Amino acid sequence: MTQKRIPVAVLAATGSVGQRFVQLLDGHPWFEVTALTASERSSGQTYGEACHWLLPEPMPEWARSLPVLPTSADAVQVPLVFSALPADTAKTIEPEFAKAGSFVCTNASAFRREPDVPILVPEVNAAHLEILKVQQRKRGWKGGIVTNPNCTSTGMTVSLKALMDAFGLESVFAVSLQALSGAGYPGVASMDILDNVIPYIGGEEEKVEWEPRKMLGVVGGEQLELAKFGISVHTNRVAVSDGHLVCLSIRLGKRASAAEAAAVLRAYQGPADSRGLPSSPSPVILVRDEPNRPQPRLDRLTGKGMTTVVGRVRPDSQLDLKMVVLSHNTIRGAAGGSIYNAELMVKEGWL
Amino acid sequence: MTQKRIPVAVLAATGSVGQRFVQLLDGHPWFEVTALTASERSSGQTYGEACHWLLPEPMPEWARSLPVLPTSADAVQVPLVFSALPADTAKTIEPEFAKAGSFVCTNASAFRREPDVPILVPEVNAAHLEILKVQQRKRGWKGGIVTNPNCTSTGMTVSLKALMDAFGLESVFAVSLQALSGAGYPGVASMDILDNVIPYIGGEEEKVEWEPRKMLGVVGGEQLELAKFGISVHTNRVAVSDGHLVCLSIRLGKRASAAEAAAVLRAYQGPADSRGLPSSPSPVILVRDEPNRPQPRLDRLTGKGMTTVVGRVRPDSQLDLKMVVLSHNTIRGAAGGSIYNAELMVKEGWL
Amino acid sequence: MTQKRIPVAVLAATGSVGQRFVQLLDGHPWFEVTALTASERSSGQTYGEACHWLLPEPMPEWARSLPVLPTSADAVQVPLVFSALPADTAKTIEPEFAKAGSFVCTNASAFRREPDVPILVPEVNAAHLEILKVQQRKRGWKGGIVTNPNCTSTGMTVSLKALMDAFGLESVFAVSLQALSGAGYPGVASMDILDNVIPYIGGEEEKVEWEPRKMLGVVGGEQLELAKFGISVHTNRVAVSDGHLVCLSIRLGKRASAAEAAAVLRAYQGPADSRGLPSSPSPVILVRDEPNRPQPRLDRLTGKGMTTVVGRVRPDSQLDLKMVVLSHNTIRGAAGGSIYNAELMVKEGWL
Amino acid sequence: MTQKRIPVAVLAATGSVGQRFVQLLDGHPWFEVTALTASERSSGQTYGEACHWLLPEPMPEWARSLPVLPTSADAVQVPLVFSALPADTAKTIEPEFAKAGSFVCTNASAFRREPDVPILVPEVNAAHLEILKVQQRKRGWKGGIVTNPNCTSTGMTVSLKALMDAFGLESVFAVSLQALSGAGYPGVASMDILDNVIPYIGGEEEKVEWEPRKMLGVVGGEQLELAKFGISVHTNRVAVSDGHLVCLSIRLGKRASAAEAAAVLRAYQGPADSRGLPSSPSPVILVRDEPNRPQPRLDRLTGKGMTTVVGRVRPDSQLDLKMVVLSHNTIRGAAGGSIYNAELMVKEGWL
Repeated sequence: MTQKRIPVAVLAATGSVGQRFVQLLDGHPWFEVTALTASERSSGQTYGEACHWLLPEPMPEWARSLPVLPTSADAVQVPLVFSALPADTAKTIEPEFAKAGSFVCTNASAFRREPDVPILVPEVNAAHLEILKVQQRKRGWKGGIVTNPNCTSTGMTVSLKALMDAFGLESVFAVSLQALSGAGYPGVASMDILDNVIPYIGGEEEKVEWEPRKMLGVVGGEQLELAKFGISVHTNRVAVSDGHLVCLSIRLGKRASAAEAAAVLRAYQGPADSRGLPSSPSPVILVRDEPNRPQPRLDRLTGKGMTTVVGRVRPDSQLDLKMVVLSHNTIRGAAGGSIYNAELMVKEGWL
Repeated sequence: MTQKRIPVAVLAATGSVGQRFVQLLDGHPWFEVTALTASERSSGQTYGEACHWLLPEPMPEWARSLPVLPTSADAVQVPLVFSALPADTAKTIEPEFAKAGSFVCTNASAFRREPDVPILVPEVNAAHLEILKVQQRKRGWKGGIVTNPNCTSTGMTVSLKALMDAFGLESVFAVSLQALSGAGYPGVASMDILDNVIPYIGGEEEKVEWEPRKMLGVVGGEQLELAKFGISVHTNRVAVSDGHLVCLSIRLGKRASAAEAAAVLRAYQGPADSRGLPSSPSPVILVRDEPNRPQPRLDRLTGKGMTTVVGRVRPDSQLDLKMVVLSHNTIRGAAGGSIYNAELMVKEGWL
Repeated sequence: MTQKRIPVAVLAATGSVGQRFVQLLDGHPWFEVTALTASERSSGQTYGEACHWLLPEPMPEWARSLPVLPTSADAVQVPLVFSALPADTAKTIEPEFAKAGSFVCTNASAFRREPDVPILVPEVNAAHLEILKVQQRKRGWKGGIVTNPNCTSTGMTVSLKALMDAFGLESVFAVSLQALSGAGYPGVASMDILDNVIPYIGGEEEKVEWEPRKMLGVVGGEQLELAKFGISVHTNRVAVSDGHLVCLSIRLGKRASAAEAAAVLRAYQGPADSRGLPSSPSPVILVRDEPNRPQPRLDRLTGKGMTTVVGRVRPDSQLDLKMVVLSHNTIRGAAGGSIYNAELMVKEGWL
Repeated sequence: MTQKRIPVAVLAATGSVGQRFVQLLDGHPWFEVTALTASERSSGQTYGEACHWLLPEPMPEWARSLPVLPTSADAVQVPLVFSALPADTAKTIEPEFAKAGSFVCTNASAFRREPDVPILVPEVNAAHLEILKVQQRKRGWKGGIVTNPNCTSTGMTVSLKALMDAFGLESVFAVSLQALSGAGYPGVASMDILDNVIPYIGGEEEKVEWEPRKMLGVVGGEQLELAKFGISVHTNRVAVSDGHLVCLSIRLGKRASAAEAAAVLRAYQGPADSRGLPSSPSPVILVRDEPNRPQPRLDRLTGKGMTTVVGRVRPDSQLDLKMVVLSHNTIRGAAGGSIYNAELMVKEGWL
């Protein structure tokens, strides 16, 4: 199999999301990392030299000796690129790769609001890949850009999709308790979070109030159309390493009991194409019955960190349902999500 | 002044709330602690011997040598009793004190649902003390029972009161991030909360969905009547020592901008009788303008831990307002609240 | 291979160390768990019902439905027993199993001080198993008791063994920073450790000042003889979930440079019989060169949690060497250590 | 009294140590802050605008409106300067102030190794101020530089001084568990310390192995002479906000029991001139008898954060004594220490 693996690059591979890409791609059956890039400061070094590795899993041996390349479409020519670039850099560099013929699966937010760029979560909206044709035609690209959502939007949207399919969706109140790794490295200062909560994450609420509506919308000819439901979000940072928790209050399109909702969540499978891929979550959604779950430390690695874990499905005194959703922010909500997207693209013949 | 101080007792003085009563009553201008009680296991010991003191402030010297008494109205005869009893014990013991002529200012939840027992927060509902007359008449008590609310209800209700007075109140969504000290001692196991959040606190959501409606209601002849607004609550435990944070989305009775709401919160004074007492918060509500405040570690001791701190007052995409409220759970939300209640009772002539 | 697996029991299987036994024995190539015991309170329940599972790894399915048995040699008849009993219970129950013919690999401290009972760490003192013959003869047992050391003694002793073999050993100063899981569950209260250190662990320093001397000693006819070197220990509890760190200052028998010591540690293999078993650490000792390692969160799972990780090997201004040792306390220092011991017993023909 | 207060400046007032200076000088009976400086980036702003205030105590009102000045002896002309400068900047700027006639009480390490610059801890070595005469003469300064020690050296040296006076001192093994605030702000990244310990602090061990020997030495004519005893130090960073804990093993000059040592520590008063100043610790040393104290969260504010807290005084199996020392690192070990030094200088007529 190795000889047939698709060569891939990781852009901004020394940062915290970049490291997660490298770790998750270690031993991937379809993809082989042949290029790692970083800022100019690191050029001329090997990845082992340039990278301050932060994960408990050891740095893969093959990565250690790879040279760090500059982040440019000239220097890196591969059919598939995983991008951990910051939004401002992504804005200019990702289109260069797409123009040069690479498909860019990106964790950056730069293009999420473009009507011809999908925010892809395979078990939610695999069909949105269709918009790539519009993207290529309009922009004259041979490759393309596929984004994954903000880490907080991800698990929330998977569970909302299951409910929307079964009952419709009118409005959502969401309050997040987000992990430190979501802020990158060095990110949050320890003095700011020890014995503390920070009830604010810059720019986050705007993203989480918008992205789910795009993901839950439909392909409408030349553009992705937003789903029509209300959504109000408050985001908090808490002293947790990995795993974003979201407390949800939901008004459905038609009434459903907590038991009916739990059954629907439990049975949810996602579109056929999203299943059976190397990174497909198994199960798609795990519904826990204990009163005090999910918890980040105990449940974040469910389904190798790709499963959406839901708990406390119960009636809401104002709307219909209340529940808690947990999703691993650097696996499901970042690098793992992008890899899963790329796998779907292989299956659908884009790669 | 010392010779005129009112002798008071603290029931269950060795527990975590009991300790906070002892610490806050140290040097109180109106009250002098003359009796400390605990379970029978501790009888015959001094408080210094019986108590595993947990507060950073040192145990007051006068407390160290006080004998620990059994928790009974026979053993302890004082006009004013502060109760840190657990709810089940409070159920039987607090009425014995009230019958014997003591006024019981209690942190226990046992009597909060009784229609003739006030849940008192002076700056919210000082007028509810009026119901004590009904309580005494109906129950044949010479003393009486006055409760303070659940620690999470407290700050939330202070801020809702200010808004309700100005704009009316239709519905509230609240998600709390609560401190460890709210669970008593030993309370939450460290293995359960390090690098974790527990999205559940037994019995808490029911209290916080009900108590604010009673506190914001009116004295209706023979009973306290609930205010009519909707309220949905989700409670979480986080790795914070002290200070409960609540994220609120609010529909007002009539539209108001975030700036108008902030101005109303900032100007709120509470009823005249609630002002100028030894424990009166100053200010009643502090509205912070920074985008990332209030924070438990930085703001919980505002106004000696008695002030309600509000921040992030902003529009809600679904309702009218979003904001964050912080209140010190063992001071404002427990012992300090009870002491403030007793001060109001002195001012209104009950003591 | 499955049909030939040795049936084993786990005593006190619902506690935190017991759970780790169950998790580590899941899929073990040589041992098959056929019995789980707990206190009488749980009898009549399945393990899934009786156990408040605390590990991030899910409870193995086979364990979920096993009935919880009483902890007695009558109820549980298997050739090999893993014991997670507390010391006081172990004192009376473990000999009953040994008498009835079972070999007991125990994490309890009850018999560690007996001169005919080994404190076994295979890569340190595999030869100490020899004393089992004396134990059986003197006590009239068909089975026997083999202990593993205190979790803090473990990693420290592995690294001291390597140095002692090469250079001799005169004296050791050790200060530990120990993880919360070492205190069991519920163990340390969260209010006691958030934003805090507890510079005391009851009974711990006595164990850690004695056990290494026994492990590093020799079989002297009818008893295990203590090695002769000085050792002074101070133990602390810190806010870490798993992984005990020990800071060591060491006087060797003969001078050695830090580089020589590091080379010796790196090359250490342990006795031949300790190698190649299912739980053998690989490497035995990992020496890290970074100035700020080992760290519990990043390094505790090295070698599946069985490897001793050493760092900061450098000269000591008073003695010869300073270094830092990390060892996973519930894997290497408890359940994993006992399982490794049992594997050695299989290899040497005791089972 | 106010009209006679000495005008003082705080250099680098916006950093974490600078903020602590401002907070501790609020309401000081002898000193009045008239100037605050910061890097050029902040010039033209008020302190309230320039400073990201991190302390739970609110920023003093008088500080809020003070203009931020550049850090130069031209811009700031006051008799007394408190310096929170980083070491490299201090190297050039502090002498300019000293030359211009200001006395600089500094927390920076830049001049601690100079033989004519005291590392001053009033209750240890008030007499070292004498060396200022040499400093002024040799350097041609009208003012001078007085340093306080590294935050970890401070509490340790106070307790060693008491023991040395009574019993002599031969050697010391010290392992520290240091708080996050010691690293400044933003300092340690939260991802590096949550569920973790970092067994390394750059440059720290060298300081803590040297400074106590200077402080415990004597004025020898033209220079301060080092005390002769051995000292070996290992430093760790732990998840504590404030309060450095040090575990000590000590060989005394002559044998003493733990009880004798505890009595000596408890009775220690320091030189006469160090007593009765506004910042004098009361008591100088608090010896706690509980087996599990001192603890940072519970004991760091003893004596307003100026007292050295000692516990677990007990025999050492290798040397004479073991004990644990706690000292508040940003109060006693930094800003508070410098202020105390300045008070001593007033008393001795330097100011």
